[in-house]
Amino acid sequence: MQPMTAMTRPQAEPRSAFAQFERLGTRWADNDIYGHLNNVVYLSLFDTAVNQYLIRAGALDIHAGAVIGLVVETHCNFFDSLAFPQGVEAGIRVVQRGRSSVRYEIALFADGAELCAARGHFVHVYVDSSSRRPVSELPPEYVIALEGLTL
Amino acid sequence: MQPMTAMTRPQAEPRSAFAQFERLGTRWADNDIYGHLNNVVYLSLFDTAVNQYLIRAGALDIHAGAVIGLVVETHCNFFDSLAFPQGVEAGIRVVQRGRSSVRYEIALFADGAELCAARGHFVHVYVDSSSRRPVSELPPEYVIALEGLTL
Amino acid sequence: MQPMTAMTRPQAEPRSAFAQFERLGTRWADNDIYGHLNNVVYLSLFDTAVNQYLIRAGALDIHAGAVIGLVVETHCNFFDSLAFPQGVEAGIRVVQRGRSSVRYEIALFADGAELCAARGHFVHVYVDSSSRRPVSELPPEYVIALEGLTL
Amino acid sequence: MQPMTAMTRPQAEPRSAFAQFERLGTRWADNDIYGHLNNVVYLSLFDTAVNQYLIRAGALDIHAGAVIGLVVETHCNFFDSLAFPQGVEAGIRVVQRGRSSVRYEIALFADGAELCAARGHFVHVYVDSSSRRPVSELPPEYVIALEGLTL
Repeated sequence: MQPMTAMTRPQAEPRSAFAQFERLGTRWADNDIYGHLNNVVYLSLFDTAVNQYLIRAGALDIHAGAVIGLVVETHCNFFDSLAFPQGVEAGIRVVQRGRSSVRYEIALFADGAELCAARGHFVHVYVDSSSRRPVSELPPEYVIALEGLTL
Repeated sequence: MQPMTAMTRPQAEPRSAFAQFERLGTRWADNDIYGHLNNVVYLSLFDTAVNQYLIRAGALDIHAGAVIGLVVETHCNFFDSLAFPQGVEAGIRVVQRGRSSVRYEIALFADGAELCAARGHFVHVYVDSSSRRPVSELPPEYVIALEGLTL
Repeated sequence: MQPMTAMTRPQAEPRSAFAQFERLGTRWADNDIYGHLNNVVYLSLFDTAVNQYLIRAGALDIHAGAVIGLVVETHCNFFDSLAFPQGVEAGIRVVQRGRSSVRYEIALFADGAELCAARGHFVHVYVDSSSRRPVSELPPEYVIALEGLTL
Repeated sequence: MQPMTAMTRPQAEPRSAFAQFERLGTRWADNDIYGHLNNVVYLSLFDTAVNQYLIRAGALDIHAGAVIGLVVETHCNFFDSLAFPQGVEAGIRVVQRGRSSVRYEIALFADGAELCAARGHFVHVYVDSSSRRPVSELPPEYVIALEGLTL
């Protein structure tokens, strides 16, 4: 058994570090036995925030789109607890993208809080909805939507 | 916008890389619009596998325990899709622990598959259930349970 | 095998049939393989709407309340589909209550829709949070909160 | 405000009242703030049990089936609590069906328990997967599968 390796401990970030914000709600079933949002709910809010933005920005059409985003990596660091019935704001930014992939970085803020309660990311690989093979380049509507997530 | 940085790409691991296995079920509601387990479900299965093991090993008493584990970090890499009604086996191992924290590494295998469909980890910080402050050392029942997760 | 018995088929109701409204959000993971909210999500929104109202009305204190509501019955009829990323409004009314129980009737409306997409109810039996035995009468803060749900 | 009307109170039923049984697991996130399965989880287990049976019986093909089942009504009565990490068995029976609809009655039993902890039903209307209009008669593979749910 190795000791936990020393590492730069992740720090909560302020609202100014994010490019777009989405309002999200919490639910009764989100609270776990300890009275706070179950850790898995945060990841569900990440998905919701980014897809909500992509739909509104005209990039994602979940029923008829020729391109779909498959999640290949998720990550989250937790700094503070959230609990139903709190409202939550998700900050989003994109600082890295590949030919067919995008890394969305998301932070969740309690209503009115300046520092985030959690921060993480997920990586979407965009694939053709029929063949499920990576696209050779991001569709133009995604390129435009991603500009709105750049600081 | 930076290019996606080159990095060692995570690889699927075999069953032999894990110390304990827990059988888990999938649910109708787990399948998303693309017909496979939503990425968030994998994290829910991580939680379930580890807590199921800790309860059976006599470490975790969710109703009366003096010590509770708070999740401070989660991570998952996805290699292949899973879908309801598949059965899933979760492999678990622990290779790193601190004074009051443990990093649980988990992989999910489709029934009969030799390589995992996803692999990730979460870090529990163990706190006093009343004060919610980190314990000074892991309770002996946890130390014993963790031995069963060591390769 | 009996034939499905003839019965008065439930009908969608208008907004005017409800006393209070709560705004709720949908999530990416709510959509099932057929592209609409999984039926279970509707029940989760029922819970959320009523508890959100009861907390705001000062009746429910989920962390320190002496009285908790246990669900003994749930029901839902579905008239139309809803889908992420739609916003939803929940209408609530109470027309029946017992000594220690309340039947909450809830309808879910798509934003802007005049007729509900689903309507159902759940029955809460209020119990002492320690003994888990039904209270002999509803606490006064609940009586006041329920007045706001009466047409 | 009306008094709660007197009615025949639903009673827990024994295993012998059901035709088929499906084994189901519980999850960490299922437990709510009161330490027991959230009421919504029971409905998710209903869905899972019936669809799992229909898939195994060769009736439901969730990826390529020409007919899909839409839920138009759900109901559940709760008699006793269940909690993670308990295993659950779902008993299923069908006593009523229409031309294009089936009412599935389901009960959830704690492992080893003779009386169910909850019992309810849901009604599926079977529709053409393209037109979403009710089928004129149930496909033969459903008729066969339903025989296995008849007492």
